[in-house]
Amino acid sequence: MAVYTHLAAEQLAELIHHYDVGDLRSAKGIAEGVSNSNWLIETTQGRFILTMYERRIRTGDLPFFLGLLDHLSAKGCRVPRTIHDRDGAAWRMVDGKAVALIEFLPGVSPDRPTPAQACAVGEALASVHLASSDFAASRENDLRPRDWNALFRKCGPDNLRRIDDTLQALVDKHMPRLLNEWPRALPTTKIHADLFPDNVLMLGDKVSGMIDFYFACDDFAAYDLAVTHAAWSFSGDGSDFRPETGAALIAGYETLRTLSEDETQALPILAQGAAVRFAATRAFDWIDTPDDALVARKDPMDFVRRLEFYAEMGDRVFS
Amino acid sequence: MAVYTHLAAEQLAELIHHYDVGDLRSAKGIAEGVSNSNWLIETTQGRFILTMYERRIRTGDLPFFLGLLDHLSAKGCRVPRTIHDRDGAAWRMVDGKAVALIEFLPGVSPDRPTPAQACAVGEALASVHLASSDFAASRENDLRPRDWNALFRKCGPDNLRRIDDTLQALVDKHMPRLLNEWPRALPTTKIHADLFPDNVLMLGDKVSGMIDFYFACDDFAAYDLAVTHAAWSFSGDGSDFRPETGAALIAGYETLRTLSEDETQALPILAQGAAVRFAATRAFDWIDTPDDALVARKDPMDFVRRLEFYAEMGDRVFS
Repeated sequence: MAVYTHLAAEQLAELIHHYDVGDLRSAKGIAEGVSNSNWLIETTQGRFILTMYERRIRTGDLPFFLGLLDHLSAKGCRVPRTIHDRDGAAWRMVDGKAVALIEFLPGVSPDRPTPAQACAVGEALASVHLASSDFAASRENDLRPRDWNALFRKCGPDNLRRIDDTLQALVDKHMPRLLNEWPRALPTTKIHADLFPDNVLMLGDKVSGMIDFYFACDDFAAYDLAVTHAAWSFSGDGSDFRPETGAALIAGYETLRTLSEDETQALPILAQGAAVRFAATRAFDWIDTPDDALVARKDPMDFVRRLEFYAEMGDRVFS
Repeated sequence: MAVYTHLAAEQLAELIHHYDVGDLRSAKGIAEGVSNSNWLIETTQGRFILTMYERRIRTGDLPFFLGLLDHLSAKGCRVPRTIHDRDGAAWRMVDGKAVALIEFLPGVSPDRPTPAQACAVGEALASVHLASSDFAASRENDLRPRDWNALFRKCGPDNLRRIDDTLQALVDKHMPRLLNEWPRALPTTKIHADLFPDNVLMLGDKVSGMIDFYFACDDFAAYDLAVTHAAWSFSGDGSDFRPETGAALIAGYETLRTLSEDETQALPILAQGAAVRFAATRAFDWIDTPDDALVARKDPMDFVRRLEFYAEMGDRVFS
C-alpha cells in the first residue's frame, strides 16, 4: 500500500482538464499498488482511478499494458478501459512520471474466496485468454524459469538463509527439475500472470473487474491458470489447500476454454513453477525492500509451502 | 498516510449491513489520517468514509466528536454527519476497535490556498463557532500552554538538539512568556483546533467540507482563528508569510462573527501559542515515531519559523 508522490489539488485539477471527463470534485490517494501510486478521482462525470507509474514499470511497456485493457474491454471482458486524453494519448507525463486515467470499476476483493467465486474467476480468466488472441502487440515474459533462478542467485545463499534455513536447499532441489521439465510447446496467449484475489473485484459471486495487468505478457495460457490456482486455492500462508476452490477455478475456466490433454498434463509442473516464481520475487523483494519502506514485505515461504504441496501431490491436485 | 488495519471484504460487507445504506459495492483504503484508518466506501445508496480509530483517540471522546458533527451538520455547517447504525449507535466495535461511518463530502484540499479560499475558510470557521454555542457536551483542550511545555520536557534537551540546535533556546525564550501572558478570559466555544488545509475540502473557492474534528474541544474562539491563521497564511515550511491570505481569512471570519477588541488584541499571543502548539506536538512525534513507521514525520521547525515571525511582528500581522 502506498502513495509515493504528492500531487497537489491544483496539479490534479489541471491534469484532469486534459481529459473529457468534466471537472475534478474529489481525489483520494488510495492504499493500493506496490509499484505505482493511485488516486480515486471523482469528476462531475464519474469516477476514475489515476495511476502514476513509480518504478519497475517501463514507460515503453505502457502501450502494451494499456492497449491490452482497451482491447479486452472492447471485447466485453471485465477489465477497466483506459481513458484517453483529448489528444488521444493513453498516458501523459506529470513531474517526469507517466500517469494514466483508468475506468473505475465497482467490487471488492474477496479475502477467503468461495468455490463459487473461484469458478467465476476461472471463467473470467478464460475470457481474457480467448479475447486477447488477436491482440497484435506482444511482450515477452521476463519472469520465466531462468529468471527465477537468476533472482535466487542475486539474493545469494546468505540472504536466503536469513529468510529461512531451508530455502537454499529447496531451490537446489526443485530448480534444476523445473528448468529441465518446463514445457516447450503449449498454447500461448496474452496472460495476466498475477491474478491474485486482490487483483479481482467481485460483487457477490460475480467478477466485476480484473485489474493490475502490469505483469501481462505472452506465455502459456495454462501457466496463467496455474498461477491463478496457486493464488486462489490456498490459505494466505500456503499451509491449507482448499480442493473445492481449486477444482471450481478450473471448472469455471473450462466452461469457456477446454484445456488440451497436454495442458492438463502440464498443470502440476506449471503450478510448481508458479509457486517458485512468487517465492523468487518475494525473496528478492524481501532483501531489496528497505526496512523503512512504505510497503509491507511478503513472506516468500508462503509460496515455498505451495511448491512443496504441488511437488508432493503431482497430478492428484488437478484430477 | 496510512491504513493500519486490514479489513477483509467479508468483514466490511458484514459491517455495512448494520447500517441502512444498502449493499457494499466498493471499498478502498485511503492514504489519509494519522491516528486512524480510513476507507472510501461505496454502497448501492451512496458513498461514505469508514473511519477506524487506531490510537490517540479515546473511545470515551467519540460521543463528543461524532455528536458535534451531527449538531453542526444539522445547523447547516459544512461538516460530514455521522451515519448511525440500525440501533442508533454512532459507532460500533470491529476487532476491538471503534469504527464510525461518516458522510462522504466532495472537494479537494488546496495546496496553496488563495485569498478567496482563505476568506471562505474564515467564514466556515465562524459558522462552526456560532453553531456550536448550544452544543451541550464539552471536552477540555488537552493541548494548552502547560501541555506544550510538558511535551518539550518529555522530549528532553538532547532530543530537541537532535531536531535543531536552536530549539531548546527558543523554548526557553518563548515558553515562560506564553505561560504568563496567555489570555485568561476570552469568548469560549467549541473549536476545531486543527483546521489545516488538509482538513478542508473545497470546490473552487467554496468550502464543501471541514473534516477531522478529533482535536475539537472547548477553548477560545480567537485561538481557533489563530491556529487557522498559522495553518493557512504561510508556505508549508513557514518561511514565507502571505499577508493577503491571512487578512482574507480574518475578514471572512468577521463576515459572520465580529471579533471583540480583547480578541483582536490577543491575536498576536494566540498565534504565537498556535505555532508553539504544533512545534511541540511535532517535536514529540518526531522522537516518538519509529523510523519504519508508515507516517511521514513533520518538521517541528516549520512552526518555529512561524513562532519567530509572529513574535517579531506582534500586532502588525493582524492590523
